[in-house]
Amino acid sequence: MRDLEAVVCLSGGLDSCVTLAEARRVHGEVGALHLVYGQRTAARERRAFDEICDHYQIASRMVAEQPALREMGRSALTDLSLEVPTGEPKEGVPITYVPFRNGQILSVACAWAEATGARAVYLGAVEEDSSGYPDCRELFFRRFEAAVDAGTRPQTRIEICTPVLHLDKAAIVGRGVELGAPLHLTWSCYQSSDRACGKCESCRLRLRGFDRAGREDPIPYRS
Amino acid sequence: MRDLEAVVCLSGGLDSCVTLAEARRVHGEVGALHLVYGQRTAARERRAFDEICDHYQIASRMVAEQPALREMGRSALTDLSLEVPTGEPKEGVPITYVPFRNGQILSVACAWAEATGARAVYLGAVEEDSSGYPDCRELFFRRFEAAVDAGTRPQTRIEICTPVLHLDKAAIVGRGVELGAPLHLTWSCYQSSDRACGKCESCRLRLRGFDRAGREDPIPYRS
Repeated sequence: MRDLEAVVCLSGGLDSCVTLAEARRVHGEVGALHLVYGQRTAARERRAFDEICDHYQIASRMVAEQPALREMGRSALTDLSLEVPTGEPKEGVPITYVPFRNGQILSVACAWAEATGARAVYLGAVEEDSSGYPDCRELFFRRFEAAVDAGTRPQTRIEICTPVLHLDKAAIVGRGVELGAPLHLTWSCYQSSDRACGKCESCRLRLRGFDRAGREDPIPYRS
Repeated sequence: MRDLEAVVCLSGGLDSCVTLAEARRVHGEVGALHLVYGQRTAARERRAFDEICDHYQIASRMVAEQPALREMGRSALTDLSLEVPTGEPKEGVPITYVPFRNGQILSVACAWAEATGARAVYLGAVEEDSSGYPDCRELFFRRFEAAVDAGTRPQTRIEICTPVLHLDKAAIVGRGVELGAPLHLTWSCYQSSDRACGKCESCRLRLRGFDRAGREDPIPYRS
């Protein structure tokens, strides 16, 4: 396994694609990490991951399977007996929240970074204009970074970089276009894998972002 | 999946077995979590996990597979091209260190705790009288706990409990005997799965602990 400068967590969605585009501006040798945790649209997300990696000619790819998250359930993304909500978001943490999901992917990413000498881990979390997941907050990333610093070799220094954390979706779309990111290859829908449903919270946030950015979303939607 | 009071990380070694015995003193419904990460003695550790769970009649068991750690290599426990050292331990972090391994298991354990309402996660790390792994230090656990607090639902409160962290191996053996822990079912050897080698750092630490506690180690060793 070759040495890396940075590890990028790449779900295959809009935010992580733009995050990868930012990482590629700064770093030469970048590894891409994809988490499979038994989510509904796993196969479609994996395709987006592969196609975005192909686009950027990324040689170092890792797909981390973590079926335990599905076994735990308690999220509409992993538990097929729960319905993905399609209305306007309600107050509080939504039912699509997957317990400590970003903790899982960051743990693998930081281990890979330590093993390959990478000094940065990128993750495309969005704090505002998002679903209100607790593991997408700045405070969480700063504390996780401090934990990684204490829990790895003395010479290991890993910065957790979240370049779109404080952008709204329109700004993320704009930045993606600016950087030439392959937004047509991304997938955000929580429940469909052929054409995006356009109704789940993830589709709504995405469509609103493109709309406000004055751009047309290049992926297919159900009419 | 039923509600739990506590999640115990159980590798199947001496330290995690005594940690489980401590957790069972305090909590009724306990779940046991085992991490499989492509280590040399995975099958033997899994057997120890199963037998210890049977002993304590633990109904909620989870085996989390994480083959990505083997893919990364760079540790003598997961990379078969590296030899497990048998001499006296050298200065610094040993080659048996698996990058951020306790970060991996704690991420899964805390997700499971959040999904089941458990308020405590137990882990059998030892800081002194151990191999000098950075992810076995008190500072790491306190910081990880703070990260989990920021990265989970507002009502989620998870304490990371490490009851043997500041004990030496002799004290751990003594405590295990006191609590009636099934030490004969545990497995600590890094490289053998039939009879313990008696020579790797893990066997050395264990044998010295039993010796200083004035007890005979009940598991079989190569003569």
